Amino acid sequence: MDIRFKPIGTVHSPFKKESDIRQENYWNPEGFDSVHGELEVFPEYSLGLEHIEGFSHLIVLFVFHASEPGKLTACPPFETQSKGVFATRSPRRPNPLGMTVVRLVQRKENILKIAGVDMIEGTPILDIKPYTPREKKAKACFGWLESTCR
Amino acid sequence: MDIRFKPIGTVHSPFKKESDIRQENYWNPEGFDSVHGELEVFPEYSLGLEHIEGFSHLIVLFVFHASEPGKLTACPPFETQSKGVFATRSPRRPNPLGMTVVRLVQRKENILKIAGVDMIEGTPILDIKPYTPREKKAKACFGWLESTCR
Repeated sequence: MDIRFKPIGTVHSPFKKESDIRQENYWNPEGFDSVHGELEVFPEYSLGLEHIEGFSHLIVLFVFHASEPGKLTACPPFETQSKGVFATRSPRRPNPLGMTVVRLVQRKENILKIAGVDMIEGTPILDIKPYTPREKKAKACFGWLESTCR
Repeated sequence: MDIRFKPIGTVHSPFKKESDIRQENYWNPEGFDSVHGELEVFPEYSLGLEHIEGFSHLIVLFVFHASEPGKLTACPPFETQSKGVFATRSPRRPNPLGMTVVRLVQRKENILKIAGVDMIEGTPILDIKPYTPREKKAKACFGWLESTCR
């Protein structure tokens, strides 16, 4: 079974390619907070953005369009041992689907000015959702990541 | 441009259809914590689950396979006014892509026992990612949802 999606918009980012992104920022909860960019939602979807202004944070679902899909293991930055890809945030995964939480700075019609950008220029956006209290998990453990974060 | 994905697994849930889900649970951060189920990852992707056990919470990206796609507005439960669909978590959206954070209870080979299930039986899984500190946003505002939550 194939599942088909169409982009609803495009990311504008200061990062032009994957290697522009400072890898150590991934391990810092505020690592990308100072990186500003835009979510350009195609005008035909503009109505879908009504009432979004009250939310401080948005979940962006996007395509890792510049990455080869398919790998089942990945060696994260600063790690020496490969991990199962579903235990990593590697862009090289069976379905090249990305998810990130950004801060909404301002909406101007179909353009959302955002902070916390860790995507590259031209990334196709598949969906935007409000970040809700259900995504705030107070008590969470982060596996192999915890030793890397220390 | 069409983007194609293939399911990597299937959700097993006590909810057999959308109307089995108690809508008021959506507004409670712990609303689904007691709902247990499984993520069945197809055996050919099992290697991708290595090292996932250390993470307490997982991000699941899935298809709202039982919902009609395409709407740009949605009237959330207990609301009287429609909102732009990107300001809601409605399953009826331009791309029927879902995202939820579940608690990992146990891994048994290619089966992940989970809690916090808000998906229905047979939901196709597109991706599983570890929940990391970057998804914990301490200071967040929740727009129209805040008056509903009170």
